[in-house]
Amino acid sequence: MRRYLAVVLIFAFAFFSSARPARADEGMWTLDNFPTKAVAKRYGFKTTPAFLDTLRTASVRLPGCSGSFVSANGLIMTNHHCARGCITNNSTPQNDFIKTGFLAAAQPDEKFCPGFSIVSLVTISDVTKTVDAATAGKTAAAFNAAQRAVFSQLETACAPDKATQQCQVVTLYNGGRYALYRYRKYSDVRLVFAPEEAAAFFGGDPDNFNFPRYDLDCAFMRAYENGAPVRTPNFFRWSKAGPANGELIFVPGNPGSTSRLDTVAELEYLRDVQNIAALRSLSEQRGLYTQFAQESPEHARQATSILFGIENSLKATVGHESTLLDPAFFAQRRAQERADRAAIAKNPAIAARFGGAYDAIAKAEERARDLEVVYTYRERSGAPGFYLATARTLVRAAAERAKPDALRLRGFNDAALPQLVSILSAPRPIFADLERTGLAFNLTKIREFLGPDDVYVRALLGNDSPAAVAARVLEGSKLADPAVRKALYDGGAAAIAASTDPAIVLVRATDAMSRAARQTFEDQVGAPLAKNEALVAQAQFALHGLSRYPDATFTLRVTYGTVSGWNERGTPVAPFTTFGGAFAHATGSDPFALPASWTAARGTLDPSTPLDFVSTADIIGGNSGSPVVNGKGEMVGLIFDGNIHSLGGDYGYDVRDNRAVAVDSVGLLAALRSIYHADRLASELSP
Amino acid sequence: MRRYLAVVLIFAFAFFSSARPARADEGMWTLDNFPTKAVAKRYGFKTTPAFLDTLRTASVRLPGCSGSFVSANGLIMTNHHCARGCITNNSTPQNDFIKTGFLAAAQPDEKFCPGFSIVSLVTISDVTKTVDAATAGKTAAAFNAAQRAVFSQLETACAPDKATQQCQVVTLYNGGRYALYRYRKYSDVRLVFAPEEAAAFFGGDPDNFNFPRYDLDCAFMRAYENGAPVRTPNFFRWSKAGPANGELIFVPGNPGSTSRLDTVAELEYLRDVQNIAALRSLSEQRGLYTQFAQESPEHARQATSILFGIENSLKATVGHESTLLDPAFFAQRRAQERADRAAIAKNPAIAARFGGAYDAIAKAEERARDLEVVYTYRERSGAPGFYLATARTLVRAAAERAKPDALRLRGFNDAALPQLVSILSAPRPIFADLERTGLAFNLTKIREFLGPDDVYVRALLGNDSPAAVAARVLEGSKLADPAVRKALYDGGAAAIAASTDPAIVLVRATDAMSRAARQTFEDQVGAPLAKNEALVAQAQFALHGLSRYPDATFTLRVTYGTVSGWNERGTPVAPFTTFGGAFAHATGSDPFALPASWTAARGTLDPSTPLDFVSTADIIGGNSGSPVVNGKGEMVGLIFDGNIHSLGGDYGYDVRDNRAVAVDSVGLLAALRSIYHADRLASELSP
Repeated sequence: MRRYLAVVLIFAFAFFSSARPARADEGMWTLDNFPTKAVAKRYGFKTTPAFLDTLRTASVRLPGCSGSFVSANGLIMTNHHCARGCITNNSTPQNDFIKTGFLAAAQPDEKFCPGFSIVSLVTISDVTKTVDAATAGKTAAAFNAAQRAVFSQLETACAPDKATQQCQVVTLYNGGRYALYRYRKYSDVRLVFAPEEAAAFFGGDPDNFNFPRYDLDCAFMRAYENGAPVRTPNFFRWSKAGPANGELIFVPGNPGSTSRLDTVAELEYLRDVQNIAALRSLSEQRGLYTQFAQESPEHARQATSILFGIENSLKATVGHESTLLDPAFFAQRRAQERADRAAIAKNPAIAARFGGAYDAIAKAEERARDLEVVYTYRERSGAPGFYLATARTLVRAAAERAKPDALRLRGFNDAALPQLVSILSAPRPIFADLERTGLAFNLTKIREFLGPDDVYVRALLGNDSPAAVAARVLEGSKLADPAVRKALYDGGAAAIAASTDPAIVLVRATDAMSRAARQTFEDQVGAPLAKNEALVAQAQFALHGLSRYPDATFTLRVTYGTVSGWNERGTPVAPFTTFGGAFAHATGSDPFALPASWTAARGTLDPSTPLDFVSTADIIGGNSGSPVVNGKGEMVGLIFDGNIHSLGGDYGYDVRDNRAVAVDSVGLLAALRSIYHADRLASELSP
Repeated sequence: MRRYLAVVLIFAFAFFSSARPARADEGMWTLDNFPTKAVAKRYGFKTTPAFLDTLRTASVRLPGCSGSFVSANGLIMTNHHCARGCITNNSTPQNDFIKTGFLAAAQPDEKFCPGFSIVSLVTISDVTKTVDAATAGKTAAAFNAAQRAVFSQLETACAPDKATQQCQVVTLYNGGRYALYRYRKYSDVRLVFAPEEAAAFFGGDPDNFNFPRYDLDCAFMRAYENGAPVRTPNFFRWSKAGPANGELIFVPGNPGSTSRLDTVAELEYLRDVQNIAALRSLSEQRGLYTQFAQESPEHARQATSILFGIENSLKATVGHESTLLDPAFFAQRRAQERADRAAIAKNPAIAARFGGAYDAIAKAEERARDLEVVYTYRERSGAPGFYLATARTLVRAAAERAKPDALRLRGFNDAALPQLVSILSAPRPIFADLERTGLAFNLTKIREFLGPDDVYVRALLGNDSPAAVAARVLEGSKLADPAVRKALYDGGAAAIAASTDPAIVLVRATDAMSRAARQTFEDQVGAPLAKNEALVAQAQFALHGLSRYPDATFTLRVTYGTVSGWNERGTPVAPFTTFGGAFAHATGSDPFALPASWTAARGTLDPSTPLDFVSTADIIGGNSGSPVVNGKGEMVGLIFDGNIHSLGGDYGYDVRDNRAVAVDSVGLLAALRSIYHADRLASELSP
């Protein structure tokens, strides 16, 4: 997975439906609807409310990822690739912690992560009736506006203390159900430990989404409050025994999004339009930044994060597309839809309420094909680069804050503003070469797809080349200075109108067109899709009742399964790898070179110590950093990837070969002790 | 089009079929089956044998392109992008003719084009009976071997003088017919004139495959023999009037390949496997070389040709894929196939002979899906980079020459060896940075797709990184020296076995695996496809007779049509552009910056002079450089591109919007006189 979430979400506007019966080990279950009976029947395990409570309270959500508390003092375990932003932001050309790893010798050495916050789920409340009442009888844009308004009211009322609380209305079962999730928020998070990237991402892109695997993809952070570590009495205790083959395990986490019961028209749109656009865009960016990184060690350092995200997203998109192009898969989905529609048609009451939904979705997707390019390049893919994206946020914040809360664009509601201000005010390093290259490239793409004579393109470029515009922005904009950003935010519409910052000037000249593209798409595609997907889901409820899990929504879910290998084209793949295997897999050349710390410790490590393992847990992007928990509630592993077959998990789960890949708790502790001599940390984890 | 041919052909192994009735202006007709009656009926024009003879004798084929004789002294007209290799090879960092353009002041200044040769068609002979007799009763690999042998015998016997003759058996109508084409060959070709790239490719990639268009995509070369210009009494005379809206025109040229009646299974394979692989590969290379070109003016110069080819191929693949993804297109093709198969099934005699062909093709495509990746990365995409590709040629030449002619790999038959030796012996500049970057990149892709532990990958890389292997080859290989190449060729198997050249060493270690991948694919996919596509074509003959044109085969065809604009989403697009339009379209920034020569001449040019125009001629990649000829046999234009709709021409022709884009003969001459002061050339063209 590797947090391709952020990038792929750019293209994901659809909401999703669910109706197939869940198969063995399948399902991303909400905490309030866990299939305790099925687990008891299949595994003889009694899932108590206390057990589920621990899964909830010890789990945290990070930006794009999952994590867990693993000590009573706010210690958080997640993946290296989920902490990458923090590691990079604390690095300098002289001290590159991505390369060297980082270990805080003592607690005061733990490093603040700018702009980074985490949340832990406190309560779930069903708000379906309130939402449905607010939108009753409304359609299209009016439906959207009413829903936005009621979401905003609910969220604002639920979180009076913005500093420590965060609330979100979650649309489940495509609008079959709405739930208000209240979180405890921690905005002071500090880096405790990260291994070298060569260990965390050993095997690099070639091994990504593959298994056997030998990665130590971990990072430890700590939540603080008022300058001191937070007390977290509910945490996952470390398992000294680690996981066993065949053992029942649970994985709490935040799967990002799935589309397991999109209609055929929606899947066709993904397959024929969105995924192909994404494959082209990501492949081109990959080539660009690969070469950029070749140019100097400094460029390599600058590009490492973006390249990482791109390769991740690309592999995920390849996996998705190959599932959608599988003729057997598609035939099965067509057959399923025919059966569903026949069942609806047979029941006149259900048919009258929901019968038109499938065709309405198909019509909206037709419209999406027409609007796709303009919407993507004027609006959806975001203003390109740090400067224009920041300028767009500032320009919009000024305009939106002048409106009543209920009428604002999402992201600019009162409930969201504190986080926005915190991000705007936090310092962050700007890599000028990377920004210039990326901005020129993205402006070129905008021109390529919209055409050189497009009015939006002319407003952006005038008679200049993309490179010249990028240079002008990089030289003239002061938005890299957090004080400037804050002042523009605080100054509101007047400050924006008066600004001569070239990034603000460009966005001011184009934002009306971007907003118009968004509005058109929302009215003609987003709103009818949202409405009719909800109708499809409600038709399923009416037919089958609510006995299914909803599609993933980047909120807390629990999945279960067993530690288990699989058969790859007839050859069995064993569930565990070892340190010995890691040394054998190493060639000494990047990305198959283990760091010096590993080579030095080789003699002190038992080669048979387990390092990584696979299980049948049904996970997806966003689950990165999830703990793997045994029946005693102990942490036995740390999810960091899925195998190549897991990529089709967006559209369906196949227990035969869909596998989650995790670091073994035994191997992790051995590495901390023998390779990194991180005794303070190891003792806190396993006293 | 812009010669995407070479790149796309890497992926094109299929042979093609044809059966739909040709519609108005549709068709790439062989010279011996031109639809004179249809043209007479529709346009009242009498196509005489003499007229067709002129089309043949004044037309030439260039590597990947078309061209024509335009004076009695061997003067050849083609596109700038078809002469690009020659222009680049004659350039130096100090004298970059791609950038500055080139004009030979006098005949002795005309510049030799290394490794460049052209051919002109002399005769076509039907050899169907001979070929069918040789392969009768054979299947699969035996069929292939027998066909190769008879092709080789026919070609060798037909061209006793390798220096001036070249023969090729052309498979038409998917093996419904075989024809032996004999060519006159010219191996001494020299550059006479090329404009600046900024004029030839004004608008760059953004404008490519688009119209309105303002390019002067021309180049002039001259064929020599014994050090003197060749006498070419048959040539196209220049039209002073130029083309008129609605005028009937003819376009002789060498369309590369079409797939207009592939079976549904073949189109699905293209759509779901090959095109997606090509989109990813080309996009990534595009990003890579785009950034490489940014690094310095020298890198920009080195990368210009490869980037050009990549962007071209990419746009073509995008066009192809969007046609294949058009639901209406695909539904039509399915319906067509159902009707064809029903007609076959109705006739027991035809069904007995050909009935199983469609299913056999589907089965071969299934197998292709399994074999695709190994075949592509071990063999089909070629050994990567100049050094390994040259080493593979040398290693194979040594092995193949030891075999009887009939058993050799194609490309190593006696008939082909003179050209091979000529290419190996010709000097050509090697761009070390570009080679190193490309080789490292391609080795990385081979590892990515085959996997790091694949035996072929281990044999190539050992424990080194792709970059280290690339550096070793670049530092150690002497294959850049034509004398070394020639010596290795002449030394045969013993010289190859003794060589310590790192490129030869790598290929020696891997070539058996590459050959095995090729053999497997040929036996299990290539051979059954060839056999059954021929059966499908023969079934069509049996049903409909031979009243259709064959799919394109990069051999001489004639298409006809009229000068005509089209309607783009309801808005009419005028057929002509002018010099005035070019100046208005220019922003001053690359790729919309006209060169200084144009700016300087602006005052002397009538802005209403036509520059480019479109016609309904049914062309495809390979037609680049084709002359547009009027009913009097005069040259009125120079094809250099198709509009975006023409890209679907691979799979079908749509007269409503498929358009060929050409330079106007009037504009071309005006540019030569007023902008380039190329009076010697202009007077030779239009005395």
